[in-house]
Amino acid sequence: MRGTTIWMKRIGACAGLAMLALAAAPARSAPATPSEIVAAAPAGDWIAIPAEDLLVMTLAPDAAGKPREVLIQLVPAPFSQGWVGNIRTLARAHWYDGTAVVRVQDNYVTQWGDPEGETPDKAKPLPPGINPVPPGDYVATPPAALAKRWESDVAAWRKAFHAALDKRDHDRAHAMLAALARGDAYADKTGFFAGWPYASDRTRFWPVHCYGTVGVGRGMAPDTGSGAELYAVIGHAPRPLDRNIAVAGRVVAGIEHLSSLPRGTGPLGFYEDPAERVAVIALRLASDLPEAQRPHVQYLSTESESFARYVHARANRQDAFFTVPAGGVDICNLPVPIRPTP
Amino acid sequence: MRGTTIWMKRIGACAGLAMLALAAAPARSAPATPSEIVAAAPAGDWIAIPAEDLLVMTLAPDAAGKPREVLIQLVPAPFSQGWVGNIRTLARAHWYDGTAVVRVQDNYVTQWGDPEGETPDKAKPLPPGINPVPPGDYVATPPAALAKRWESDVAAWRKAFHAALDKRDHDRAHAMLAALARGDAYADKTGFFAGWPYASDRTRFWPVHCYGTVGVGRGMAPDTGSGAELYAVIGHAPRPLDRNIAVAGRVVAGIEHLSSLPRGTGPLGFYEDPAERVAVIALRLASDLPEAQRPHVQYLSTESESFARYVHARANRQDAFFTVPAGGVDICNLPVPIRPTP
Repeated sequence: MRGTTIWMKRIGACAGLAMLALAAAPARSAPATPSEIVAAAPAGDWIAIPAEDLLVMTLAPDAAGKPREVLIQLVPAPFSQGWVGNIRTLARAHWYDGTAVVRVQDNYVTQWGDPEGETPDKAKPLPPGINPVPPGDYVATPPAALAKRWESDVAAWRKAFHAALDKRDHDRAHAMLAALARGDAYADKTGFFAGWPYASDRTRFWPVHCYGTVGVGRGMAPDTGSGAELYAVIGHAPRPLDRNIAVAGRVVAGIEHLSSLPRGTGPLGFYEDPAERVAVIALRLASDLPEAQRPHVQYLSTESESFARYVHARANRQDAFFTVPAGGVDICNLPVPIRPTP
Repeated sequence: MRGTTIWMKRIGACAGLAMLALAAAPARSAPATPSEIVAAAPAGDWIAIPAEDLLVMTLAPDAAGKPREVLIQLVPAPFSQGWVGNIRTLARAHWYDGTAVVRVQDNYVTQWGDPEGETPDKAKPLPPGINPVPPGDYVATPPAALAKRWESDVAAWRKAFHAALDKRDHDRAHAMLAALARGDAYADKTGFFAGWPYASDRTRFWPVHCYGTVGVGRGMAPDTGSGAELYAVIGHAPRPLDRNIAVAGRVVAGIEHLSSLPRGTGPLGFYEDPAERVAVIALRLASDLPEAQRPHVQYLSTESESFARYVHARANRQDAFFTVPAGGVDICNLPVPIRPTP
């Protein structure tokens, strides 16, 4: 991971991104749209997704015969690496080939895997090398750089707050409290690090479930779930899943092939008629494909000045028809910009 | 509107629902799922949606010939009533019949209206009685009951906070600050009133854009948008639209007919080929239908004890596979339960 971060940059409080957005804007002549800022980002602000972190999932063509390809970036260390290892093993064994999308629950998830996975005598055997993963992998200790910035920001906020109280400057103290309350409902703070959105309670941090997040289906016990059953979020961010289910990655292209599928009519959106399922033709690591067939994708560095401007613009939109800037933005309304490598 | 509210009930701070969720749980023997709580709600906790507030939109049948019906509840006063009046006029004039879904943008909106609406000489003429609406209708002054509770809750929080500081009980003060930071990124507070989710900055309140929210498409000026062009949210809550675009209602049944449509490939998700459009066969007020054809739908009173338990359960899930309760929940992860009248 890169050592710098916008986590809590420029602000001194606990509320995270929402407050970052309230910080001073970079000087500009006219409000730019978030997409203009992204389009203007210099080449050096873009980081290639390594081929060994990129999954290429080919679904059966649609009714009109059009191909459907979904690209998924695997989540980096220190999270979920047990499951990520299993997913690489399953992909290399071509295990996912012939499985199917079995469940589409509106405003929640599209899930794929072995339709007979729950039936012991019919389930497709897993290849050698698939290991159980301890639930401890759901969270991690923040890297030292993050923890240090957090502590120094909190200390600065406290100092300023106590100074306001000592001076009996109650207007300032109350404004600081009001700004503090512009936070995240699920965590003490949220932010970005090395290209991914995270939440934190100061002693631990964890990846968050946003639109397009790919997670590991599992049973009732937290150490179940091998990585053979995966889902992608296709609705409002189901943040209560954070720390309960492993984030394995995120869809970086082709989410529409998962989000626009007919919803299942069975409980939890499972397809009742096997004919409704969409076959997974192949799921490969890009690094296992011949060079000519590999997709090449980049993400905008979350440590770049372009990304800071993008966050500010999304939190304070005044372009196009926007007349009332929100003055804040939640972590899942800040999708990390992705593009095909030019 | 009913006079009671769970807005800030039981808690004394500015952060709203996230903190409501942290308040003491109703005594229970075992954690119930949100759906169990809703299923167990007594009949008296359910409120019928009046037929004059319910729109019935019939889309062309799907490829398999299955009918597609979408039910939309219009937003109550004091918001957006100019547009709501226009929508009732357009529905009574059968103006929407023969219009179409023209735009489906992934993780954002499905929009319907006159495909030629932007072309002055081809646009379908609006019926008499369609009035321009001042943008002031986007927000309103909170009802007195809300404002009073808010002030008293804020006063109680301040008193307790200052008492902790006076006693030099810094642990307590910091815990209060940490809880305060569990808020909403877009507003000082959020809550429910008379069945609808709102956000507020204390002096004003406004309806929020969540999954399924129906809004009024408009041009660049805030007083444009007649109600002839409508959209439904089909992705992560686009809260930056709050206060910028009028909330006209919410989908209470059949959202899957809008959310699972193929995404448009033109700019902003507009369909490039007119053949991709889905025809709106009819859009009627339920009150204009013969009694035998009227759908009957209820919502769970947001002032009921059942709803308070539902909110608590969604904020602290420990049922099924959940092992780490979130300790909070955002306003858009609390869809107001809806059911066909039994």
